[in-house]
Amino acid sequence: MTDASCPERAVVIGAGLIGTSAALALRRRGTRVWLWDRDPAAAALAADLGAGEALAGLDAAVAGPADVALIAVPPAEVAAVLAAAQRAGLARWYTDVASVKAQPLAQARRAGCDISRYVPGHPLAGRERSGPAAARGDLFLGRAWALCPAPETPDAAVAAVTAMVTACGAEPVLTDPATHDRWVALISHAPHVVAAAMAAQLAPAAVPPGALALAGQGLRDATRIAVGDVGLWTQILTGNAAPVAAVLAAVAGDIAAAARALGSEPAAADAAEAAPGPGQELAVLLERGRAGVARIPGKHGGPARAFTAVQVVLSDRPGELARLFTAAADAGVNVEDVGIEHSPGQPVGVAELSVRPEAAGTLIAALGAGGWPVRR
Amino acid sequence: MTDASCPERAVVIGAGLIGTSAALALRRRGTRVWLWDRDPAAAALAADLGAGEALAGLDAAVAGPADVALIAVPPAEVAAVLAAAQRAGLARWYTDVASVKAQPLAQARRAGCDISRYVPGHPLAGRERSGPAAARGDLFLGRAWALCPAPETPDAAVAAVTAMVTACGAEPVLTDPATHDRWVALISHAPHVVAAAMAAQLAPAAVPPGALALAGQGLRDATRIAVGDVGLWTQILTGNAAPVAAVLAAVAGDIAAAARALGSEPAAADAAEAAPGPGQELAVLLERGRAGVARIPGKHGGPARAFTAVQVVLSDRPGELARLFTAAADAGVNVEDVGIEHSPGQPVGVAELSVRPEAAGTLIAALGAGGWPVRR
Repeated sequence: MTDASCPERAVVIGAGLIGTSAALALRRRGTRVWLWDRDPAAAALAADLGAGEALAGLDAAVAGPADVALIAVPPAEVAAVLAAAQRAGLARWYTDVASVKAQPLAQARRAGCDISRYVPGHPLAGRERSGPAAARGDLFLGRAWALCPAPETPDAAVAAVTAMVTACGAEPVLTDPATHDRWVALISHAPHVVAAAMAAQLAPAAVPPGALALAGQGLRDATRIAVGDVGLWTQILTGNAAPVAAVLAAVAGDIAAAARALGSEPAAADAAEAAPGPGQELAVLLERGRAGVARIPGKHGGPARAFTAVQVVLSDRPGELARLFTAAADAGVNVEDVGIEHSPGQPVGVAELSVRPEAAGTLIAALGAGGWPVRR
Repeated sequence: MTDASCPERAVVIGAGLIGTSAALALRRRGTRVWLWDRDPAAAALAADLGAGEALAGLDAAVAGPADVALIAVPPAEVAAVLAAAQRAGLARWYTDVASVKAQPLAQARRAGCDISRYVPGHPLAGRERSGPAAARGDLFLGRAWALCPAPETPDAAVAAVTAMVTACGAEPVLTDPATHDRWVALISHAPHVVAAAMAAQLAPAAVPPGALALAGQGLRDATRIAVGDVGLWTQILTGNAAPVAAVLAAVAGDIAAAARALGSEPAAADAAEAAPGPGQELAVLLERGRAGVARIPGKHGGPARAFTAVQVVLSDRPGELARLFTAAADAGVNVEDVGIEHSPGQPVGVAELSVRPEAAGTLIAALGAGGWPVRR
């Protein structure tokens, strides 16, 4: 049984990271879920993971139309899949998860889809890894999920899809396709290209490994998003071309101006005593950057993750982690995640145990009593 | 008592994050440490944290010259502080931690410093937080620490400073000032400006909070380094102007080209069917970006870390990880790192154990024999 706000029956088309994660979330709420993927092995793996029942085909018999069909395929395939799913009468309402919204909607119109039954959507969640094996039922917990109805989309459609989004644990954000596309150009699509352009400077063989050996966590973080699938991202970027181009042109202009300001610097030896002009121009850009970062909610603004980290210094020998986890288990504390800061060859490392906040005190007390060098 | 490779006596000038962390690391090895900071409260706090003995002044009596003086002040102040420290005869050898190397060396020459007693240095370590309270004795564990001697720097100076760097747990990397500055322009200084330029686009009030509410971890990571201290970073960037300008000009060029390619896209509705030209140009940039990221050692590179991952399906209850680690320890296998893929609420998760390649077979056999659902 599902509660009132949750779809009773859902079809998920596309058993990748996003589709399988949504299926897992819905199953946890009691929704009956059918899965289909162009790759039958992906749908079978998702089903094995408990995400639902694999369908042999998009036109395979479902026991009556589902409440909602979630189309979790790349942007350029949304319209064709929506048309096929509507022809098969799979569901009462339809939504998708593509990172661009105006283009799939326009394509769906031209493909003759019934737009009055379609609510374009976009969950703002993801991982570096893809595929059903990487799926998590909590992928959408607390994440924004944009819903961008067309003018002719009825309230009932929006309500049904909103219920599904809420059942997945996400926060529905209602906007329109054009506004959505401008927003994600700024907070996702342009940053991807900018990170790629920076990382591209590290690629040439002329950059020696010695230079890269100096790289720290800052560079890794700044370029991490650039590892995304190239084919998918090319679809996303060309599918949101004008808004992304506008942001990129502005970023390129600021970086080029910084390069010119630095290029006009006197020789290195005299720089510190030189007129502060170029430095001031740079400082203004850096201040604007800090102001921008400060506006991003999450780690630097509001709440994000609900776990507390407990750090324990570890010696590097077999059995040390086992003893630590045994101590945690003896204290009745479930470790939700663990990270190890450890420099091979060094005698010590730091294990960072993520636990529910209410368990942190218990764990710290128990480990401290057991002689572990623990800190919060 | 210190061991043979560790300085017996050190002076740390500048009790900020870097200076205090080095002092803590050295103290842990048994080095006697004196601390001085322009701000007496900073030196006193560092001393309270166990980092050493606070000095009343740079010319205060130390019981005979120390082995090494570590000058941990902003780049533009290095030469003046080095000159003052050498006048006071504080130490036999001197080094600094500034993120640029050619400029402080040139300034030190002009200030009449004894360059034959000075080894310019730069630890590649840091945190988002600054000041002595944020210091950690393990800040440099496994991190690169560049040493960039001048032609006239004798081997004995390099050996003494190398011993101090090693005592801090860092990996010394020997290069020259100009090469160092080109390398850090690429892996640290230019990425800082690029992240700031991207983040700056989020600053204007015209960007509504609704747009920023859609931001995810990717944007936070990509812009995080832009929160650094503006005054310090302006010093760093103007102190390494030409190498940074060259990298920034190349990045700006690539981003501007991507903007032009996208700007030449047909209207959104037709993009997916359009000629693949602009998409191909973007795809080339994204591929270059991925290639660059792949070269960065560490979590997302591969080159620096040669571990094999062994995956084990886990039930989600206290003690399960303890039993797994106990089984690994019983097999004599050291687990170097561990990641947990776990969808809360689901009865199963996946533990990914990183072990040395030669140990993977042993671990898989032992876990399999013990009934663990293991896969490589």
